[in-house]
Amino acid sequence: MATKLPPEPLDWRIKGLPAAWHGDAADLAGAGLSVLNEDLMLPAAVLRRSALQHNSRWMQRFTALTGTQIAPHGKTTMSPELFAMQMADGAWGITAATAGHVRAYRAFGIGRIFMANQLVGRANIAYVAGELRTDPDFDFYCLVDSMHAIDLLEAGLAASPPGRRLQVLIELGLSSGRTGFRDDAEAVAAAERIAASPYVCLRGIEAFEGVVQGLEPTERDAKVDALLQRIVRLGEHCHDSGLFTGEPMLSAGGSSLFDRVAETFGAARKERPFFVLLRSGCYLIHDSHFYKQLIDQLEARSPIAASLGEGLRPALEVWAYVHSRPEPTRVIAGLGKRDIGEDVARPTALAWAHPGADAAPLPLSEAHRVVRLDDQHAYLDVPAESSLQPGDLIGFGISHPCTTFDKWKLLYIVDDALVVTGSIRTYF
Amino acid sequence: MATKLPPEPLDWRIKGLPAAWHGDAADLAGAGLSVLNEDLMLPAAVLRRSALQHNSRWMQRFTALTGTQIAPHGKTTMSPELFAMQMADGAWGITAATAGHVRAYRAFGIGRIFMANQLVGRANIAYVAGELRTDPDFDFYCLVDSMHAIDLLEAGLAASPPGRRLQVLIELGLSSGRTGFRDDAEAVAAAERIAASPYVCLRGIEAFEGVVQGLEPTERDAKVDALLQRIVRLGEHCHDSGLFTGEPMLSAGGSSLFDRVAETFGAARKERPFFVLLRSGCYLIHDSHFYKQLIDQLEARSPIAASLGEGLRPALEVWAYVHSRPEPTRVIAGLGKRDIGEDVARPTALAWAHPGADAAPLPLSEAHRVVRLDDQHAYLDVPAESSLQPGDLIGFGISHPCTTFDKWKLLYIVDDALVVTGSIRTYF
Repeated sequence: MATKLPPEPLDWRIKGLPAAWHGDAADLAGAGLSVLNEDLMLPAAVLRRSALQHNSRWMQRFTALTGTQIAPHGKTTMSPELFAMQMADGAWGITAATAGHVRAYRAFGIGRIFMANQLVGRANIAYVAGELRTDPDFDFYCLVDSMHAIDLLEAGLAASPPGRRLQVLIELGLSSGRTGFRDDAEAVAAAERIAASPYVCLRGIEAFEGVVQGLEPTERDAKVDALLQRIVRLGEHCHDSGLFTGEPMLSAGGSSLFDRVAETFGAARKERPFFVLLRSGCYLIHDSHFYKQLIDQLEARSPIAASLGEGLRPALEVWAYVHSRPEPTRVIAGLGKRDIGEDVARPTALAWAHPGADAAPLPLSEAHRVVRLDDQHAYLDVPAESSLQPGDLIGFGISHPCTTFDKWKLLYIVDDALVVTGSIRTYF
Repeated sequence: MATKLPPEPLDWRIKGLPAAWHGDAADLAGAGLSVLNEDLMLPAAVLRRSALQHNSRWMQRFTALTGTQIAPHGKTTMSPELFAMQMADGAWGITAATAGHVRAYRAFGIGRIFMANQLVGRANIAYVAGELRTDPDFDFYCLVDSMHAIDLLEAGLAASPPGRRLQVLIELGLSSGRTGFRDDAEAVAAAERIAASPYVCLRGIEAFEGVVQGLEPTERDAKVDALLQRIVRLGEHCHDSGLFTGEPMLSAGGSSLFDRVAETFGAARKERPFFVLLRSGCYLIHDSHFYKQLIDQLEARSPIAASLGEGLRPALEVWAYVHSRPEPTRVIAGLGKRDIGEDVARPTALAWAHPGADAAPLPLSEAHRVVRLDDQHAYLDVPAESSLQPGDLIGFGISHPCTTFDKWKLLYIVDDALVVTGSIRTYF
């Protein structure tokens, strides 16, 4: 997991790092620090290396079998080491959401960035234009979804010329949804304008199908398929009308419906030379709740996913102490909103251990449930017969990777005995 | 706002910083960067210097008039510059929640730390013991709420002797609440044990009254007053029984009921030599929703607070671009869960501006409402007649400081024209 970023000091800035330990990331990998032996200043977030490797290979095989490419959404982890792992395992590029992400990715040494967002704002446009001007190998894409947005981009690029046309994709969207043209005739007019522009060129058609949430699977899939078909039809029209520059891209982006994207765009690819780009951000880390349910559905739905055998594994856990058991059925643990996300659902208490050199994690029954998070505390309901006591360790599974990752500047890579064998940095 | 921490480079790691700008924090303060003139790579979080100064002086006057001391909870901001401002304005110390906080505060040069939490775990106890051993001036306090916790502390301190007794406070709690003894007889037994221990000494009685939430004010205040009275009675008993070491402390900790704490503990202080410690973390930053409502109540309830004139001001805003207006009543803005908290309520759209050298913010009607946050996008419902267009700026108020602060490594200090006049760092 090599990265071009110079090493940074590991010190008090890093949560979980033992105060008595000194060194760099290479020293940390070899120090034999054990979660279960209390070598870390818990709480700490750990990534199981076995799960990362399994998940990365899983997606490599999925894209190979479906003839798609992937630019994993980097917002999930913002980690140079994990980006390097994804690029080494065949990713075509890395997806960004903001100009700030682009700037971080450039510092990481990423040469191809798909910004799945509008590029808005004087300083943001000037920054990207400057990168394009100074690095002829920098391959950058972003989205447009209104004539007004094209006006703004053209004005920004005129003020800060990148020396080549900016590659854009037209974004389609859904009524009451996020960004993207609602009206396909307006999208065609925008495509024609882009094709004639001296500042921008049309490279593809795109949407974020993950905006469809809260529906039953059948209704959701029908709505998503209709959106994907709109992308195909607009892509076909733009291709047949000669509006594209280069190999035209069809892209969609979520972490739960990429099988539908691969199938629908794959069918269109048999008729025309489309480049199909997936952008899942969460497959590498996965989780113990939200994407677990969605990927279980995907594996049941997709013969190609099913053919890969074991599905994605949850890679991320946060380990913390029991601080108190003030009532027989109430445990308070030493982690909170500052350590683990709850935007989709509360964390899952997966396992516990009484710490020591020979400690091994034991499963926790489902009757151990996190019922509230404060900034730095978790409240659990537990059975009266639970063994948990102050000083015991609990490992928590996450409900959504993006909102746990951003709470850690460093995550510890561990083996399956929860001994630290490496680390990755994040830059949110 | 001086701090002992060495300066850190300002570069791509900092969200919002212009890519074309190079320098350190002092350069940033003098560069004249304007939010409204699009000098920053938005989104960016800004702190109004006028509000910070007003709020800091407000609390200085409140504690002076009530005869209390304050150790502001540092978890809100984790900012060395803001801690320095609070200490310069008379704070007695800084409150921490975790051993990791203690380690960061020590790096900031903080000499007195009140850890409003149990100190649990081998590496965590060893770290604090080491700090006490190597710095005779380090003044540290933490909580205990069970005999089991005392066992763990004594074992940890025996293994890593700090050279003096660890100062602890007994924590009381409420049924179905967070930590703290539910039974006052058990708390007395713990006090007696602590007083006789060679490892720990009893310095006071404490609770976190902010655990009482979701009740009507009358019911809430009655429950809080009963908890504060339990603290007073236990403090009186321990004082009269000679169980305390040094000047006994009574402390409670939230940001919304500190008037009740000051009044109840202040009355007890007339009878016995109690040191009354408040721990509000949010007064300095305040907000536009949650604490706004609670502090409005406090000002209506507390004659002393009312005597201070203007109450707390919201200091923090996040500014972002309109990215899209894909439907007449839907605006998508370029900020999300990664930039602003929504754990209490969604952000408030306060003001907007069409950017430029002469731009001035205009108020937004309440019909402009944030209805959803994705990781990097906000969805607003807007009136069909709203002026907002892609490229316009929106300033968002926050609903709770703690969960917005932790999304920024640097916040820009601005004057009331939103020109950058300084910056503060955070270390979450």
